[in-house]
Amino acid sequence: MSRVVITVMPKQGVLDPQGQAVQGALARLGFSGVEDVRVGKRIELSVTGDDPAAAAREMCERLLANALIEDYRVEVGS
Amino acid sequence: MSRVVITVMPKQGVLDPQGQAVQGALARLGFSGVEDVRVGKRIELSVTGDDPAAAAREMCERLLANALIEDYRVEVGS
Repeated sequence: MSRVVITVMPKQGVLDPQGQAVQGALARLGFSGVEDVRVGKRIELSVTGDDPAAAAREMCERLLANALIEDYRVEVGS
Repeated sequence: MSRVVITVMPKQGVLDPQGQAVQGALARLGFSGVEDVRVGKRIELSVTGDDPAAAAREMCERLLANALIEDYRVEVGS
């Protein structure tokens, strides 16, 4: 059983409304000098099988990421 | 200007409905052997100032994380 971390972020150049909302809220709270906020997902899961990285990439392609607008990264731990 | 990565995850022991939904959806897609799915947020931002880590921790306390049910981690890059 491997612990896998999947990170899904909006692609560079794609509008990120959630990031914009966070940036605006931080400015209203008085945090100045905050720029280029991007908000994505971090998914941690345990996977059995011979090739957890390949399984996780397939999960991203089929469910967890939208390849049109998001990039994903898979890291396999112990 | 420092690039900061903030990770916000549900605390251990706190119910994670989004993780449960992902786990159910993966099972229905035929991914067997997936357990203990946790879904959190990854927030990337650029911050000016002398102590970007302290600023980011304050952002978490005031806006980005719910300390009752979420843990956060701050990493400062270059």
